[in-house]
Amino acid sequence: MEDKKPLILVTNDDGITAPGIRTLIKIMNKLGDVVVVAPDSPQSGMGHAITLNDNLYCDPLNVEETANHLEYSCSGTPADCVKIAKQEILKRKPDLCVSGINHGSNASINVIYSGTMSAAVEAGLEGIPAIGFSLLDYSLTADFSPCEDFVERIARNVLEHKLPPGVVLNVNIPKLKREEIKGIKVCRQAKAHWREEFDKRTNPQGRDYYWLTGTFINEDEGEDTDEWALANNYISLVPIQFDLTAHKAINTINNWNLND
Amino acid sequence: MEDKKPLILVTNDDGITAPGIRTLIKIMNKLGDVVVVAPDSPQSGMGHAITLNDNLYCDPLNVEETANHLEYSCSGTPADCVKIAKQEILKRKPDLCVSGINHGSNASINVIYSGTMSAAVEAGLEGIPAIGFSLLDYSLTADFSPCEDFVERIARNVLEHKLPPGVVLNVNIPKLKREEIKGIKVCRQAKAHWREEFDKRTNPQGRDYYWLTGTFINEDEGEDTDEWALANNYISLVPIQFDLTAHKAINTINNWNLND
Repeated sequence: MEDKKPLILVTNDDGITAPGIRTLIKIMNKLGDVVVVAPDSPQSGMGHAITLNDNLYCDPLNVEETANHLEYSCSGTPADCVKIAKQEILKRKPDLCVSGINHGSNASINVIYSGTMSAAVEAGLEGIPAIGFSLLDYSLTADFSPCEDFVERIARNVLEHKLPPGVVLNVNIPKLKREEIKGIKVCRQAKAHWREEFDKRTNPQGRDYYWLTGTFINEDEGEDTDEWALANNYISLVPIQFDLTAHKAINTINNWNLND
Repeated sequence: MEDKKPLILVTNDDGITAPGIRTLIKIMNKLGDVVVVAPDSPQSGMGHAITLNDNLYCDPLNVEETANHLEYSCSGTPADCVKIAKQEILKRKPDLCVSGINHGSNASINVIYSGTMSAAVEAGLEGIPAIGFSLLDYSLTADFSPCEDFVERIARNVLEHKLPPGVVLNVNIPKLKREEIKGIKVCRQAKAHWREEFDKRTNPQGRDYYWLTGTFINEDEGEDTDEWALANNYISLVPIQFDLTAHKAINTINNWNLND
């Protein structure tokens, strides 16, 4: 349709200097013109937070001296980054928004806590094809090289096919060597939850405080789920939507005694 | 099934002293034993954020001297409040979790930015029937009295019928007099988005910053939507789910060229 190179917006939730986003920027530079707008500090667990009660800073930055793409560091959340990129920085609507590569899983129910995915959803709301990528390795020294060609392949497919309206992609990558990865599997989100464990401590002033920790509980044995795919050495790709309506429940509730 | 009074967890995102939660506490005290665990400060726009990189305080508090229910003020987000209530404060799983009454709309796409709804979703994930309530009035002096009997009726129905697995309720109430409210309508989430407008300013040190503002754009003319119901003087009730899988998109994407 166009001869122009695709315009690609890159963001994340681990912050603009995280190894995961640096890998993603490198891959996206093969596919189009890249603009990076990413948080100036880690935003993990921010869900779809936006900054309403504070001002936002967004300044040009050069993380890599040799880079020929534009980068901006933003004081806000991942969703803020996408909003400000679209409205204040980019001259036209991007052809693709990619978020990540997150250091840690956003599979299953983690999607709802995920800053990485909130950026993708925010772009999707604007009609921008969008993908969140995550590697199942929380380490800051995680090795992203095994997944590079898969990330590139998924992004190329989205640039070519676009995405159905109201849909963005949640891609999770197992922590494996390149030759151990069996391929990409389109999945549904596994039913799972976290069993919280609060680590209770007392501060030097004698006041109790807590650290939130927890154990991930997968209740779902389906072989069509993202958790199954990841446990079986596949990259999981879940199309997700932001119409949260539980359509099947509407009839049930219409039988209640709501209007006497 | 049980003779015991229902145990009801109350939370919100506007903070434990907001008029909306005080109204909700008063109503819930008619229906069961109330425990309040709510943020110590406003958390609007926090989406499904959780506190991973900071410690959490959660202290007993008596906002109303005459109250005979327990209250705790928590330094975290609405989702944190539900997690800590369940794990550290409540002696058994509550029969109901209610969040709100939010000062401002959480209808349509606002659900994904909503701290109020994130608390309800967090409870729903634990199998606790949960409802988020919002009044379409941002004012701190909003009049919650016209909606009190509707809130009570919806909560009574949920206590009686429970909710389908994986479903929580998003209830929005128009800003009207009691006699102007036509009733409760079960709806789907309207397709809509925000058109951002950034208010760019310069701080005293000469650095640019932004305030996020915007205009709500409803693209959806369906008469089965929450936006239609609210515009037509109904209370909207949308069942929402946290399985975000776009099931219909799975076949489409399986036709892509992902694995060779």
